[in-house]
Amino acid sequence: MTPPDEERVARVALTWLFEPGNRVVWELVQQVGAGEALAVLLGDGLPGGRLRGTVAARLKAGDPRRFAETALRRGHRMGARVVVPSDAEWPGRVDDLAGLEVESGGRVNADTRPPLCLWVRGEPPLGESFARSVAIVGARAASSYGIHVAGDLAHSLAERGWTVVSGGAFGIDAAAHRGALVAGGRTVAVLACGVERPYPAGNAMMFDQILEQGLVVSEWPLGAEPLRHRFLIRNRVIAAATAGTVVVEAAARSGATQTMNRVLSLSRPAMVVPGPVTSAMSVGCHAILRASPDAHVVTSADDVLEDVGAIGEYLPPPPRGEHRERDVLDEESSLVMEALPARGSSTAEEIAAAAGLDLRTVLRRLSLLELTGLIVRRGDGVALARKRGC
Amino acid sequence: MTPPDEERVARVALTWLFEPGNRVVWELVQQVGAGEALAVLLGDGLPGGRLRGTVAARLKAGDPRRFAETALRRGHRMGARVVVPSDAEWPGRVDDLAGLEVESGGRVNADTRPPLCLWVRGEPPLGESFARSVAIVGARAASSYGIHVAGDLAHSLAERGWTVVSGGAFGIDAAAHRGALVAGGRTVAVLACGVERPYPAGNAMMFDQILEQGLVVSEWPLGAEPLRHRFLIRNRVIAAATAGTVVVEAAARSGATQTMNRVLSLSRPAMVVPGPVTSAMSVGCHAILRASPDAHVVTSADDVLEDVGAIGEYLPPPPRGEHRERDVLDEESSLVMEALPARGSSTAEEIAAAAGLDLRTVLRRLSLLELTGLIVRRGDGVALARKRGC
Repeated sequence: MTPPDEERVARVALTWLFEPGNRVVWELVQQVGAGEALAVLLGDGLPGGRLRGTVAARLKAGDPRRFAETALRRGHRMGARVVVPSDAEWPGRVDDLAGLEVESGGRVNADTRPPLCLWVRGEPPLGESFARSVAIVGARAASSYGIHVAGDLAHSLAERGWTVVSGGAFGIDAAAHRGALVAGGRTVAVLACGVERPYPAGNAMMFDQILEQGLVVSEWPLGAEPLRHRFLIRNRVIAAATAGTVVVEAAARSGATQTMNRVLSLSRPAMVVPGPVTSAMSVGCHAILRASPDAHVVTSADDVLEDVGAIGEYLPPPPRGEHRERDVLDEESSLVMEALPARGSSTAEEIAAAAGLDLRTVLRRLSLLELTGLIVRRGDGVALARKRGC
Repeated sequence: MTPPDEERVARVALTWLFEPGNRVVWELVQQVGAGEALAVLLGDGLPGGRLRGTVAARLKAGDPRRFAETALRRGHRMGARVVVPSDAEWPGRVDDLAGLEVESGGRVNADTRPPLCLWVRGEPPLGESFARSVAIVGARAASSYGIHVAGDLAHSLAERGWTVVSGGAFGIDAAAHRGALVAGGRTVAVLACGVERPYPAGNAMMFDQILEQGLVVSEWPLGAEPLRHRFLIRNRVIAAATAGTVVVEAAARSGATQTMNRVLSLSRPAMVVPGPVTSAMSVGCHAILRASPDAHVVTSADDVLEDVGAIGEYLPPPPRGEHRERDVLDEESSLVMEALPARGSSTAEEIAAAAGLDLRTVLRRLSLLELTGLIVRRGDGVALARKRGC
């Protein structure tokens, strides 16, 4: 292997020193580059002093550069690559996190900056995989309803050439991956630990299959443990890298709810699958819909593609709830209306023949239709009223 | 009985001659009064000529004034009264229909004008009953889920002193009335036929109980049949007379969907109970939510009262989906944060004692919290960071 470039080593080292998303670290990297940022943060130039304690504690565990070089070598042997922003396969959408300011209980949570690098296992290029992708997230303790809907949705999206993105958890995450896998589609698991040992181990066979059809991705270097707070840090990548996110079942104030807040802050399509109001697993979904006017109900892959797809590209059949003329007409009146010629007039007898109704019924309906202004009498027949302004 | 006034007779006669909501008839009544309008419509002054055929057909069945007087006498004997706008108990909200213009398939459906009169059976005053009322509407072929939710919602609303309003149909309508009745509350059935013989007959026992605790109401005079198109005409009264409408289960393009379009056109709270996306009976509900940004998800009586109630009067507990600081913290970090004093600083030992955690855990959590900027080191202790602007 060619020796990894300094930029790559420095970004891996920085992610080992500081949790991803850290605002100060990311901004320093933007200003002076990753190599120089690492030197500054390891030296006396540490800005503000707040990061000093963390660095000191981490340095006791080893030298960051040496750690990064070792991890990159190990990654190369096992088929894991590190992707950085200067690479062609960097998923550009995640850089939208640069401008994200998340209100969190009256405080601004600014530590939601873009990843410094992404560890990737699997063949397909990372950026291309995310380009036409939809995230499906939700509860670990999902109900059979949620499992069914998530799997079905993922299957349909994969069939139409969209990548499914999720975490690696039991419940909705796993159902989404499995749906895409069964459809022979591409799926991406974004983890909160090293890609060499995807968590949870109970999904190991699923992860193996994902590696054959898609990607396993993480910001954290090889060896990183799936600490609880990391799942919440990870969620911003799922929200930012995809064209939109669907939540299928979520308990109140859950991780999926937090992901949706990121999606909304990024102005990405935030889609919610509703469920029975009697189900605890849909409480979070309905709370998002009530709290966020920008969140959309979706009930099918058609709805999802309408919300994320290029206009016209995935236009679903006209919404069945749309208001039409026939909504206010009974069946017989509709038949009469349909029997009337677009231009000119017909006699009641002609209408009866065309509509397959008896004359008496037609005459009764014509009176009603005339009263409502939909038709007008003309000579010895009736005609469609011209569209009126009022 | 005192003889019914000319105004009342004329309004009943006009409703017998023309279906309620007719724009031309209503505007004429506004301009010249009901008695004069009736005279005009029966004479040669018929405006536009479009109503002439209807009048002619109807006159063959009898004299409108005589019909109205007979109906009013018969109503008096059976305890049915006719309420007109000049009466104290007239529900003022229905007059908002005067300004309603409903787009219907490219045409403006203007025949949604206020009722000319309302037939009422039952003790409570009509206006007072509607003042604090919520409509609950939905499918006849409701699922057990819909029946359960509608009954539960109506029960809770009735318990809190709100009137439940619905049609008289099987399914959601009946479940709503029954929920309110069981709670000992007030419920109003708005019919599309004469109040002397509520339709459907299968709900006869329910109608009897409604008459004991609430009201049976209709625009149509005694003897009027429940023709199909009348349900759609009736729906605008349910939408207009109430403080808001909840739809619980609706098939695509159903009557309940049409009611919600009226509710939205009137800018009244349009509330939707979601359901499983796998249920055909929730398709209409979800279609409304997708098509109408103004429609709200509701999952409970708390949600409904939040949407229709006076601000502050019915404030429910804070939405459980709300984003809080703790969302981004794990349990141990939350305990550490809670152990920190609002002012001043604490040592790690003091925090460990207050939080009930061991010192090692506290030190680890403090490093993380410092890194995220939530706390700052101060002297030999740590303190909560002041809220920052960025």
